[in-house]
Amino acid sequence: MNPNQFLPSIERVLDQVNAISLPGPGWTRPSYSDEESRAHHVIAVMCEDIGMNVWRDSAGNLFARLPGTISGLPAIHVGSHLDTVGQGGAFDGAAGVAAAMSLANYFVESNQRPKSDFVVTVLRAEESVWFPASYIGSRTALGRLDPQELKIKRTDTGLTLAHHMQSQGIDAAAAARITLPAPARFLEFHIEQGPVLATAGEPYALINSIRGGLRYRDAQIHGTWAHSGGAPREIRADVVFSFADLVTALDENWAARLGKGQDLAVTFGIVNAASPIHAMAKVPGQMGFCLDLRSVDTEVLESVDNDLKLQIAKIEAQRPGLRFALGSQSRSTPVGLSGLFPDLLGRAARELGQSPRTMHSGGGHDAAAFATAGWDSGLVFIRNEHGSHCPEESMTTVDLAEAVAVTAHALLNEEKVNT
Amino acid sequence: MNPNQFLPSIERVLDQVNAISLPGPGWTRPSYSDEESRAHHVIAVMCEDIGMNVWRDSAGNLFARLPGTISGLPAIHVGSHLDTVGQGGAFDGAAGVAAAMSLANYFVESNQRPKSDFVVTVLRAEESVWFPASYIGSRTALGRLDPQELKIKRTDTGLTLAHHMQSQGIDAAAAARITLPAPARFLEFHIEQGPVLATAGEPYALINSIRGGLRYRDAQIHGTWAHSGGAPREIRADVVFSFADLVTALDENWAARLGKGQDLAVTFGIVNAASPIHAMAKVPGQMGFCLDLRSVDTEVLESVDNDLKLQIAKIEAQRPGLRFALGSQSRSTPVGLSGLFPDLLGRAARELGQSPRTMHSGGGHDAAAFATAGWDSGLVFIRNEHGSHCPEESMTTVDLAEAVAVTAHALLNEEKVNT
Repeated sequence: MNPNQFLPSIERVLDQVNAISLPGPGWTRPSYSDEESRAHHVIAVMCEDIGMNVWRDSAGNLFARLPGTISGLPAIHVGSHLDTVGQGGAFDGAAGVAAAMSLANYFVESNQRPKSDFVVTVLRAEESVWFPASYIGSRTALGRLDPQELKIKRTDTGLTLAHHMQSQGIDAAAAARITLPAPARFLEFHIEQGPVLATAGEPYALINSIRGGLRYRDAQIHGTWAHSGGAPREIRADVVFSFADLVTALDENWAARLGKGQDLAVTFGIVNAASPIHAMAKVPGQMGFCLDLRSVDTEVLESVDNDLKLQIAKIEAQRPGLRFALGSQSRSTPVGLSGLFPDLLGRAARELGQSPRTMHSGGGHDAAAFATAGWDSGLVFIRNEHGSHCPEESMTTVDLAEAVAVTAHALLNEEKVNT
Repeated sequence: MNPNQFLPSIERVLDQVNAISLPGPGWTRPSYSDEESRAHHVIAVMCEDIGMNVWRDSAGNLFARLPGTISGLPAIHVGSHLDTVGQGGAFDGAAGVAAAMSLANYFVESNQRPKSDFVVTVLRAEESVWFPASYIGSRTALGRLDPQELKIKRTDTGLTLAHHMQSQGIDAAAAARITLPAPARFLEFHIEQGPVLATAGEPYALINSIRGGLRYRDAQIHGTWAHSGGAPREIRADVVFSFADLVTALDENWAARLGKGQDLAVTFGIVNAASPIHAMAKVPGQMGFCLDLRSVDTEVLESVDNDLKLQIAKIEAQRPGLRFALGSQSRSTPVGLSGLFPDLLGRAARELGQSPRTMHSGGGHDAAAFATAGWDSGLVFIRNEHGSHCPEESMTTVDLAEAVAVTAHALLNEEKVNT
C-alpha cells in the first residue's frame, strides 16, 4: 500500500477547490455562499467522472456512492466540509474531502471495493464564524436542525440562514424537515488545529473525543465616555480597563484549572474598541468582545461560566458605572467518538508498521454531529504547522496520503477485523 | 452686567456652526475639511456684519479686529477652534468662538471698547485625532509649524496635511513660512472636559496650567495566530492576554503614582482586535491600540514611558512569541499659563460677587500653543456634563454667558487693574 499513489487525486482536489475563494489573503468560502457551492460542484463533477452515484440532500450536502461488495451493511461515509473561516487556510475541510476523493479514486482505479458502500460526503456550513451555530450542514443532514435556527443571521451580512440557503437554490423549509437517516459510519480526515503532532514529529493521529464549547460571541461592556485628559481616575468607567481585569482574572483561572488536571482553552478572539466613535483622546465608554471556552468536560465549562459571572459581578462592584452584557450564549457539547475507527485504523497502522497516537480534538468537527446522532463516527488528525484558521496552515499531502493509505488498507481488509 | 444679554449671540453662533457637520450621530467637522471651512465662513460673515475688519492668515486661521480705545497696546485675542473629533459634541471649540463673538457683539452694540484691540480668533485644526500633531492651526499662526509636518497624514484619508490645506484653498508652503507675530494676549473659553465643575456645582473656572501628553497612536502587538480549541495554553502567543497584562500593570502604576501625589491620566482610547482576519475561533495573532498619557509634569510622563517599556520587556519575556511595537511617539509639553487672566478675571468675578476656582486643564487647548510662543495666554473652563468629545456634551449657554459677562466687565475696566 504505497501512500504516493494517493497524492495525485489529493492534490487535484486541493488545487481545484482552492482555486475558488473570495479575494485573499488566504481562502474565504463562507457558509452557504456561491464560493462554497462552486467548491461542492468541483467534487460532484469529479465523482461523476469516475462513475459514482451523486446526489444532494435538501440542505445542499453532497454525497457520492460507490457500492460495496456486500449489500445491506451500514455505509462508510468519508468526508468533511469546504467552507472556510474568513481568510482561512487551504486545508481546513478541504483536506478531508481530498482524502475521501482519493480513496474513491483508488477503489475505482484498482477495481477493489470495501465490504460496505463507500460514500464521499461533502458537508455544508461547518465553520461557525458565519452563523452562530455549530455543524449546521451535518446536523441538518442528520435531521437535527431546529427550524428556529433558520432565523439565525450570518454575522457579516445580517441575513438569515434561510436566506443564504435559498440564495444557493436550497429550500430552507425542506432542509429543516430532513429526518434522521439510519445510523451508519462517518470518518473525517482533518488537519490538527494545534501543534501537538508537529512538535512530536508524527504525521497523523486517531481521535477519541472532541472538545465542546461555550461561547459568547457578542459580549459588550458599557461604561462612560469621557475626555482622556479631563476625567479623573476615580470617576472613570473605562471599559478597556475593566476588560483587562476580566482577561487577567480568566487567565489565572485557566492556569489554575490546568494545574488541577482539567481540560480547558480560553480565547478572546475578537476585541473591538475601534468604532468610529472611539478615539485616542476619549476614555472608551463601550466595547465588544467574544469569548470562546472549550473543554472535553461539560462540568468544567459550567464551572468556568460560573466563575466568569462571579468575576464580572466583582469588576462591576469595583468599577462603578460599568456594566457587562454577555449576550446570548451558544454551546456545543463535548463528544466521545466511537471506538470503531481507532480500533480499525490502529490495527491497519500496526500491520503497516506504524503506531499513531490516540488524542482528543480541541476543535469541533462534523464528526461530532455524526457521533451525537448515534453514528460510529471517527476522526483522523493530520500534522499541520503554522496555526489553523489562517492562510499559513501547512499540511503536507504526503502526511495525508500516509493516513489515507492506512485507511484504504483497513477498509479493504475490514472483514479480518469485523466479521 | 447682566449675563442674559450675551445669550442671543452665543446661541446664534452655536446654532449656525452646528448646522454644519458630516452625518451624525453628533458633530463631525474634520481639520482642514469643507465643514471646518464653512463654519469659519459663518463667523467671518457675522464679524463683517458688525463692521469688524476680517482677515485670514496663510494657514486659514480667521481673525476679526475691533480697535481698542488706546492704540499700540498688545491686542486681546479671544477665540477657539471649530473642528471637532469624529462624532463629537456641540460645544468643544464652538463655545469659545461663541464667547468671542458675543463679546464683540456686546462691545459694538453697547458702543463700549476695551483699551486694547479686541480680535475674534478662529483657529484651524485643533483636534489631534485627524493629524498626528497638536495645535496645528495655532502653532502655524505663531510661526511654529515645522515644514516637515506638512507631510503628516490625516488618519482617515491617508492624505497629507499639505494636501488637505490645499483642498481648502490654502497654500501649505506659505503657511509654513509664517513668522512669529509680536506676542499679544490670547483668551480661550472652553468646556471642561471632565466632571469637576459639574460635581462641585460651579459654572466656570480659571485655568493656570495645561497637561502635556505622551502618545502612541499606532501601537501593535504581534503574536501567533492559532485555533482556539487546538492550541495548548503553554504554546500560545495570544496578543489579547498580553495586552491585558499591560493594561493591568499600567493601571496599578497609575494608582500608585496618584497615591504619591503625581498628576497622571492613562487612556487606551482605541483597541482593535477586530479586523476581517480576527474570528471567535482564532487565537488572535495581531492587534492594535493607542495609548494616551497626560500629566502637568514632564518628568512624570518620562517616568511612566520608562515603566511602560520595562513592563513590555517583562511581558515579552513571560510570553514567548509576543512582540510589542509601540510605533511613533507624539508629545505635547505641559504648559503653565500666564497669571494675567486669572488675576484680571478673578478680580472682576469678585467685583460681581463670584469666586471661581483656579484649576489645571486635563486636555490640551490652543491656549497652550499661545503660551508656548510667549503670549499672555488664558483659559476659562465652562461646566459640562455627560463627557466630552462625544455627542452628549452638555454645556448650558447660561454658564458660558456668566463667564463672558465677567470677562466683559474685566476688559472694559482693565485700566483699574493694569495701568
